[in-house]
Amino acid sequence: MRFSKCSEQAVIHLRSHRLALCGDHFTERFRDVVKKAIKSYRQLTKDDKVLVAVSGGKDSLALWDVLLDLGYDAEGLYIDLGIKKESYSDISREKAEAFARNRGAGLIISDIRKEYGMSLHAAARKNPRTLCSVCGIIKRHEMSRVALEGGYDVLATGHNLDDEAGVLLGNLLRWNLELLRRQAPRLEAWHPKLKPKVKPLCLLTERETATYAILRGIDYVYEMECPFSLNSPSIVMKEALNRIEERSPGTKLYFFKKFQRHRNLFASREEEKQKEEGAELVECGICGFPSSSDRCAFCRIMRGKRKN
Amino acid sequence: MRFSKCSEQAVIHLRSHRLALCGDHFTERFRDVVKKAIKSYRQLTKDDKVLVAVSGGKDSLALWDVLLDLGYDAEGLYIDLGIKKESYSDISREKAEAFARNRGAGLIISDIRKEYGMSLHAAARKNPRTLCSVCGIIKRHEMSRVALEGGYDVLATGHNLDDEAGVLLGNLLRWNLELLRRQAPRLEAWHPKLKPKVKPLCLLTERETATYAILRGIDYVYEMECPFSLNSPSIVMKEALNRIEERSPGTKLYFFKKFQRHRNLFASREEEKQKEEGAELVECGICGFPSSSDRCAFCRIMRGKRKN
Repeated sequence: MRFSKCSEQAVIHLRSHRLALCGDHFTERFRDVVKKAIKSYRQLTKDDKVLVAVSGGKDSLALWDVLLDLGYDAEGLYIDLGIKKESYSDISREKAEAFARNRGAGLIISDIRKEYGMSLHAAARKNPRTLCSVCGIIKRHEMSRVALEGGYDVLATGHNLDDEAGVLLGNLLRWNLELLRRQAPRLEAWHPKLKPKVKPLCLLTERETATYAILRGIDYVYEMECPFSLNSPSIVMKEALNRIEERSPGTKLYFFKKFQRHRNLFASREEEKQKEEGAELVECGICGFPSSSDRCAFCRIMRGKRKN
Repeated sequence: MRFSKCSEQAVIHLRSHRLALCGDHFTERFRDVVKKAIKSYRQLTKDDKVLVAVSGGKDSLALWDVLLDLGYDAEGLYIDLGIKKESYSDISREKAEAFARNRGAGLIISDIRKEYGMSLHAAARKNPRTLCSVCGIIKRHEMSRVALEGGYDVLATGHNLDDEAGVLLGNLLRWNLELLRRQAPRLEAWHPKLKPKVKPLCLLTERETATYAILRGIDYVYEMECPFSLNSPSIVMKEALNRIEERSPGTKLYFFKKFQRHRNLFASREEEKQKEEGAELVECGICGFPSSSDRCAFCRIMRGKRKN
């Protein structure tokens, strides 16, 4: 049995909640769920200056849209990796810029070709790591750098419930305790130069963020988040969870929420804590961010060739 | 790249181990893996009198076969639930009896229609529980009863790696800590009337147990383990894991083995322990087994109508 809130035509059926909602009620509920995540997980306060990592996809633009509507001081950061395949970087950058223009919101562009003289591909070609691994290092570094230099209080990313449940499943299948204990909806900064990271969409599925973006008329990149991620392990985890969800609606949300209640099961024990604290951290001689050696992974990859 | 141990035709390719094995080498390896599980998880000693729960399917008959070959004092227990659908009980009982005859091994039959005057269906019809739930209660009770009355030291069941990994995934998706902490390859007895339970096939996949049973010429029920389990939640979990396994061979084994190393993460904390210990246990007034009230779930279902 499904419940409707009004007589309007429903745009979405949420099987796990037995709800059929019209556009207005869905949009209202979507914002309420974001508010709930922000409150339950103490992700943001209204005094925070928030930097939203924007890819040009549905999730990050939906997040930015809701945060602005909820009255947060939220500016965007688009990292242009110079991906030429399917003109991915150009198209997604345009979507981010158009959204910022329409909403009159501030957008910072980090163009790594301009900043460091090479694209993601050029960087990955000279490195034994996979493209996705190099991409992650560059994005994390640029987010941290811009957040610090711009005086932001917190970094927000558009990870949705499907992302979080998929990563959680992968970490459990490998029993990666270190990653499990770090998989929080608000990850506190572990170094004075770093900022806390929050994921306000963590209670909403991919289907919900797409519906929200469409209803709100947000023009986003319709293709996969990235043309290289089609066969990634995270897609396999998401597919497996979607099959289970189909049979047992609500599984993903319950799995993620209850994990957060039990996350302290994976907290470091005393001997691990000592080991972790004992791991000597220095500051990278080039960029100044915390690193295990005098040159951080990012600067080793980009060869420290910072132009400006 | 696959490694072969000899020039014989391979009967199975174990992708997760990059091994292609002939019949003899596979059978030898299968026994070695059972020995390894028995040793690593301290499941059995050669002095134990073992009661093997036998369904007539590939797993339980393969288990019994290996235990006999390894020199264990292992007798079988077949519980005849009186399932008429597809003549399931009759056919599977015949398979168990034929195996016992061929191997000259002792087999105990618990025929619940004779013992308690009703079949599984008759029992379930009068009970609000699902058929599968009633079936579980009956089987657990009969295993405990026969093990105690027959003076056995330990109960062995044919759960394979697919079963265990599937149950583990289900328990994690629901974060059922109580079931997680109990999901051990050897579950110690928690009451003087109960016996320890072991699962010596827990490191071998369903595909491996089927291959072993076929190679050994064991005549088993080829159909699903039970005609009612086709749409059970555990099948959904197994399917999801199989999809992941296909992409990342070895995931299931790693998932299960590493969980066993980390199982103490789910150990009861002090307050839970007190709660559990405080839960008053009495002995059932009819059968004498531990129960939370003066009549256990089994005797409530079967109405205590024990005939003999």
